[in-house]
Amino acid sequence: MELTHLDAQGRASMVDVGDKAISRREAVAEVWVHMHPSTLQRILEGGFDKGDVFGVARIAGIQAAKRTAELIPLCHPLMLSKVQVELTAEPEQQRVHIEARCRLDGKTGVEMEALTAASVAALTLYDMCKAVDPAMTIEHLRVREKTGGKTGHWQHPECSP
Amino acid sequence: MELTHLDAQGRASMVDVGDKAISRREAVAEVWVHMHPSTLQRILEGGFDKGDVFGVARIAGIQAAKRTAELIPLCHPLMLSKVQVELTAEPEQQRVHIEARCRLDGKTGVEMEALTAASVAALTLYDMCKAVDPAMTIEHLRVREKTGGKTGHWQHPECSP
Amino acid sequence: MELTHLDAQGRASMVDVGDKAISRREAVAEVWVHMHPSTLQRILEGGFDKGDVFGVARIAGIQAAKRTAELIPLCHPLMLSKVQVELTAEPEQQRVHIEARCRLDGKTGVEMEALTAASVAALTLYDMCKAVDPAMTIEHLRVREKTGGKTGHWQHPECSP
Amino acid sequence: MELTHLDAQGRASMVDVGDKAISRREAVAEVWVHMHPSTLQRILEGGFDKGDVFGVARIAGIQAAKRTAELIPLCHPLMLSKVQVELTAEPEQQRVHIEARCRLDGKTGVEMEALTAASVAALTLYDMCKAVDPAMTIEHLRVREKTGGKTGHWQHPECSP
Amino acid sequence: MELTHLDAQGRASMVDVGDKAISRREAVAEVWVHMHPSTLQRILEGGFDKGDVFGVARIAGIQAAKRTAELIPLCHPLMLSKVQVELTAEPEQQRVHIEARCRLDGKTGVEMEALTAASVAALTLYDMCKAVDPAMTIEHLRVREKTGGKTGHWQHPECSP
Amino acid sequence: MELTHLDAQGRASMVDVGDKAISRREAVAEVWVHMHPSTLQRILEGGFDKGDVFGVARIAGIQAAKRTAELIPLCHPLMLSKVQVELTAEPEQQRVHIEARCRLDGKTGVEMEALTAASVAALTLYDMCKAVDPAMTIEHLRVREKTGGKTGHWQHPECSP
Repeated sequence: MELTHLDAQGRASMVDVGDKAISRREAVAEVWVHMHPSTLQRILEGGFDKGDVFGVARIAGIQAAKRTAELIPLCHPLMLSKVQVELTAEPEQQRVHIEARCRLDGKTGVEMEALTAASVAALTLYDMCKAVDPAMTIEHLRVREKTGGKTGHWQHPECSP
Repeated sequence: MELTHLDAQGRASMVDVGDKAISRREAVAEVWVHMHPSTLQRILEGGFDKGDVFGVARIAGIQAAKRTAELIPLCHPLMLSKVQVELTAEPEQQRVHIEARCRLDGKTGVEMEALTAASVAALTLYDMCKAVDPAMTIEHLRVREKTGGKTGHWQHPECSP
Repeated sequence: MELTHLDAQGRASMVDVGDKAISRREAVAEVWVHMHPSTLQRILEGGFDKGDVFGVARIAGIQAAKRTAELIPLCHPLMLSKVQVELTAEPEQQRVHIEARCRLDGKTGVEMEALTAASVAALTLYDMCKAVDPAMTIEHLRVREKTGGKTGHWQHPECSP
Repeated sequence: MELTHLDAQGRASMVDVGDKAISRREAVAEVWVHMHPSTLQRILEGGFDKGDVFGVARIAGIQAAKRTAELIPLCHPLMLSKVQVELTAEPEQQRVHIEARCRLDGKTGVEMEALTAASVAALTLYDMCKAVDPAMTIEHLRVREKTGGKTGHWQHPECSP
Repeated sequence: MELTHLDAQGRASMVDVGDKAISRREAVAEVWVHMHPSTLQRILEGGFDKGDVFGVARIAGIQAAKRTAELIPLCHPLMLSKVQVELTAEPEQQRVHIEARCRLDGKTGVEMEALTAASVAALTLYDMCKAVDPAMTIEHLRVREKTGGKTGHWQHPECSP
Repeated sequence: MELTHLDAQGRASMVDVGDKAISRREAVAEVWVHMHPSTLQRILEGGFDKGDVFGVARIAGIQAAKRTAELIPLCHPLMLSKVQVELTAEPEQQRVHIEARCRLDGKTGVEMEALTAASVAALTLYDMCKAVDPAMTIEHLRVREKTGGKTGHWQHPECSP
């Protein structure tokens, strides 16, 4: 199997997806933002469910998903039918969990869109809290699951039963 | 100390930096992409120093740094004077190390620009190799160091002596 | 009936349109720019039908329609098949009328695209004339009419017979 | 006095601001979104101060301010030092008031940035509520006040004492 | 035959392609960058096949193709299925040949996308070498060939047998 | 002298301009669009000085200048103080001449901005006339002159006395 983004001479190109079948494709990506307990506390005190910090990060993630093809050079432009970003505080682990879910009826997968949404939501969280906690880290970004296309259902090995 | 992106009512705003002093500011962010040993092998066989995979990721990271204010809602637009992205294979740890360095003479720090550059370089690496290794993970994104502004020199606690 | 952009917990998301039927959709939005009679006179003296002020505003509106999904966070990206922006001087009322018409064969309506085109054309008009008439106002932006989708033909109540 | 965006032959150009002095400039724009009382009621029930609808509109407005030079053809790119967008329900008048405030230390005014922020916040409000109330209208967008530059302080005639 | 981008009154609009048939469309554009022999020599010494200069230009061209509708006011947004950019040194003629190939299953041709990709790749080449050779010129940009749509196969007259 | 966009290992980076002096910089780029005499005739019949074809191309060029740093990977973001694009019919040579002039008070030259403006204006001209004359060619794009910076005044050798 070859790295599909390189042509026969090893040069980058945007591969042809013209002959691929249109199918419903969905991908879920996730990432964790680790922070000082007092930082998480502040976010939660702002009001957890509707707190502005999570709200801004959610919107930033959704918007970033739509711009994936501008950011990742060899991604195809595509027409997302759904983008959802969820942030959940995990105070016991001193972190926030971010999950991004993208859907499309199209010829290419949407894992890059889900990864981009999760990344930018995490970066936005960092941006809003960095004045009080610059040592925050963004951990373990990955595709957790995807469906559709030739491969069908795929789950990250760490998540499989 | 307050979360500076929220006003007195807890609402998001882009904070005023008009009265801050102009100083030289620099930030370094880093991240690791973990992959299957055979994936890294393929990348290296394409020719390590000039290999297209690293080359494309480097360019994607540099370009993303310039678009940080579009992606992160409360970031100020700014005029980066330098962006550098370096990718280094760490075959023993089965991973690639990415380091992004941004510089500016201005009123705000550039850590978000460095983090965005490192993130997008990592996502581009994922994109180019995902057909052979979808289980890759992107680990431990953080600001390693920054200088300039009122804070002066700051180093991530994990990196301090 | 619910605000469809909020999920069960009241959080913003980009709603799934994957199961909606593809139909031809069209929307017309309109807005008025009120100005000093002498401002309108200057614009008209530049040559009404082909005058540069109207020409620049028209182009700005058309281009903005294509970027709606970047500006409005929860809008879906879509593939407009037609965008038309018309500016008409209404000297008796001391104003310019702007009408934007968008069309698409797709799963979502195009009223946001028409509203965005009309808005940006109006802002461009303001920009080009603000040195002589900063007190101009932009009035009564609305969707006048739309067709296609489940709702079929809809007309703004004020415009109905 | 001439329309400054047209050259001697009446052709559009981006005027030279190179010789203008740098000064602190600020502009405030405002607009009203009129809606059915039950629509406003729904928004408020979502929780007024931190409600997601207002939160999303605020973020959209802030981000749009940063992209003004991309949307308005003859605007200069500039480095906003502050953007603030406020939404206030005015239930007695069945409308929402939106105010956008931009600040800059630079050579050109920021009224276009303030107008763009207010417009896009209003459009986002429309987008989020259009399923229940497509007849909403966006009314009376204007610059209310600005300071800085050669003109100094300027207030919209309707707002002056 | 009329200039299709102007309506009956000679005003610009984005023409309706809603009723056009979907077909596979492909276009090839090409351009040459002329330079001092020693400039080309330096590029080649960096390692011809994978040299960074060509690599960066290739990526810039691919990314630009995806943004054509943002740059060219009356272009329709579209969903490219393939973009390929090739750079070839022609040392005897003291120039570099750039060829861009775009493909789409859609309602409009992709010649503007191919021309934009070739242009931006050439500009990037200029940018990277301008410090040593500011007198470089970019020559003879054209569509060489296109297929699909009502016209079927078309070849530039200079290239026909 | 080295290719300044490559670091010691031949890898692309955005070079540091932090220590360069701020000076007034100006650059002029030019290009010619060759076309069938009847194509030029049609454009001119639309009314030469204010004809929509030239008007749209002018606006497209101005807007593109502002986005140069997004298109050309290693260009610095900068704050243009002036952009001017002029189109002149040269019927005897069956072509249109396009000249773009950019100005800045800053640390880097603006020749890439002028070249980008001229290119995109030429591409827009092609786009608007391609239905009647797909064989048009875009010829001899170059920097004609620039001033400012360490180099001072520079003129293309072909244009020097």
